[in-house]
Amino acid sequence: MNTAFKKRRLALAATLVLATGAAHAAEPLSSWNDGLAKKAIVDFVERVSQEGGADYVHPSERIAVFDNDGTLWSEQPMYVQLAFILDRIKAMAPGHPEWKDTQPYKAVLENDVAALAASGEKGLMELLVATHAGMSTAEFESTANQWIRTARHPKTGELYTGMVFQPMLELLQYLRENRFKTFIVSGGGVEFMRPWSYEVYGIPPEQVVGSQIKVKYEVRDGVPTLAREPGINLVDDKAGKPVGIHYHIGRRPIAAFGNSDGDYQMLEWTTSGPGPRFGMIVHHDDAGREAAYDRESHFGKLDKGLDDAAGKGWIVVSVKDDWSCVFRYACAP
Amino acid sequence: MNTAFKKRRLALAATLVLATGAAHAAEPLSSWNDGLAKKAIVDFVERVSQEGGADYVHPSERIAVFDNDGTLWSEQPMYVQLAFILDRIKAMAPGHPEWKDTQPYKAVLENDVAALAASGEKGLMELLVATHAGMSTAEFESTANQWIRTARHPKTGELYTGMVFQPMLELLQYLRENRFKTFIVSGGGVEFMRPWSYEVYGIPPEQVVGSQIKVKYEVRDGVPTLAREPGINLVDDKAGKPVGIHYHIGRRPIAAFGNSDGDYQMLEWTTSGPGPRFGMIVHHDDAGREAAYDRESHFGKLDKGLDDAAGKGWIVVSVKDDWSCVFRYACAP
Repeated sequence: MNTAFKKRRLALAATLVLATGAAHAAEPLSSWNDGLAKKAIVDFVERVSQEGGADYVHPSERIAVFDNDGTLWSEQPMYVQLAFILDRIKAMAPGHPEWKDTQPYKAVLENDVAALAASGEKGLMELLVATHAGMSTAEFESTANQWIRTARHPKTGELYTGMVFQPMLELLQYLRENRFKTFIVSGGGVEFMRPWSYEVYGIPPEQVVGSQIKVKYEVRDGVPTLAREPGINLVDDKAGKPVGIHYHIGRRPIAAFGNSDGDYQMLEWTTSGPGPRFGMIVHHDDAGREAAYDRESHFGKLDKGLDDAAGKGWIVVSVKDDWSCVFRYACAP
Repeated sequence: MNTAFKKRRLALAATLVLATGAAHAAEPLSSWNDGLAKKAIVDFVERVSQEGGADYVHPSERIAVFDNDGTLWSEQPMYVQLAFILDRIKAMAPGHPEWKDTQPYKAVLENDVAALAASGEKGLMELLVATHAGMSTAEFESTANQWIRTARHPKTGELYTGMVFQPMLELLQYLRENRFKTFIVSGGGVEFMRPWSYEVYGIPPEQVVGSQIKVKYEVRDGVPTLAREPGINLVDDKAGKPVGIHYHIGRRPIAAFGNSDGDYQMLEWTTSGPGPRFGMIVHHDDAGREAAYDRESHFGKLDKGLDDAAGKGWIVVSVKDDWSCVFRYACAP
């Protein structure tokens, strides 16, 4: 990363941190309407923070984990990383003339959604490998970084990083002010998120857990390099989430925040430990301000989680009723 | 973990933190003799901490990584985790009568070092799987925790956690006071270290990177469980160290501390990045106070690192000359 770019990054980060701090110094969780969800959050945080109280948790054990897609930012009309993959295929196409006649590349280049869907998980994996492996980690970071700073959401025309959920940013901030350590635990690629997680969420790369491609260390022409290999080291989704948490964090969180059945096991693992526990599901039920989807959705399907939330004691957040404002770009002062 | 035990842990942690803080509030690195090594450390930390200076590094990027065996605590006459494995085989033997006549178990039960050595890496791996897999992560943590709190070093009779290097504890503290984030990056098993890393080193579990056994999430009789499987997910040694750093931390450290050729690639990866970088090797040359070993040692062999240190700009610390006191148990006031 060049120095000028780095300085801009730091300046932007400082601005965001200051802005967030200033806007909410007076009232935490200001984009949350008064209601059961907000009350449950505040009650939990106060209980575990009260020294001498029955539910006190030492700050070193206040670990909170957040899913990313659909929990911290929008996953509609498709995962942001999938949009990145499609854009990369198009950008790389001139160097691969054979893609014009080969599926699933042909489908991407022709915006043929039906053919792309027909290529299934195998097709997607091929696109993932083509765009995510075969380069150094530094090269991938640079590519992902440039893309996220310029690519725009197909519906709103906003930067994707503006389409993070303002109430969740406030929640991250509120937890950190109460000495929680906040982690992302996402099915998305860890290296896709790490370049911007600190700026956008205040979460440093070392607190981002995600799906991982294999890497290999080697000295290439005298230059130490981490090469991205065409193999998967961890699929950090569903039953893989507690595993990713264990590998990276090494202890059970006390609070987990998700939105889909991909987060079910993370919520289950987190909330079944002893002592005070907190689980929350964001339910996307606001077609006007964002999108309304759950049991039938291709992205972020929420079915079993909706059925079991009440029995498990998980709080279901209604975007429509619980959030006074949704996207950062639309809420910022 | 039961509550009484947890409270004792926290009390002990608080005592250690307070003791370390009080002892060194006046003078950091007080067990380091004045010399090139101490001067190099202080110079580096001051350079990266000076805002506006040419070598300033933002605190969020002040990542320092430490090998464990031979760098933070003694690895002689054998790795502590190997002593744990041998003790576990003996403790588990009553449930495995067949071990009396089966290698490599027989060798362990009869303290037959030659036969154990003859079983080679394959034999060791068998012992590792027998003692480290086939139970839940919670069961393993409890076993490791009980062992480390009672087992004693064969030569000094001290608890292993008393045989950590006092100058390195002061170095960890000094770096953290200067807003470094300190990580362990060890060839040892990550779950062997995490139960006590915070108490002993002030390093929380989520900042410990190490070799990793595969785990699997499942709900057993209604209880969410992480089961340890007989397979290795990561060997965090040699070229595996930069890989482990990348998976867990997600960015290149600016300072690395090791003592053996197992740390060579970690030092190389860390110090070949742009901007200010720091690499240090602890050279065990003090037979009187600890042990003298390097090129020929079975544990912690240091050969290539000694040859290349000067050319790479890595500081070689002499235990004999640079440390006024070695083990915590012998230095503590």
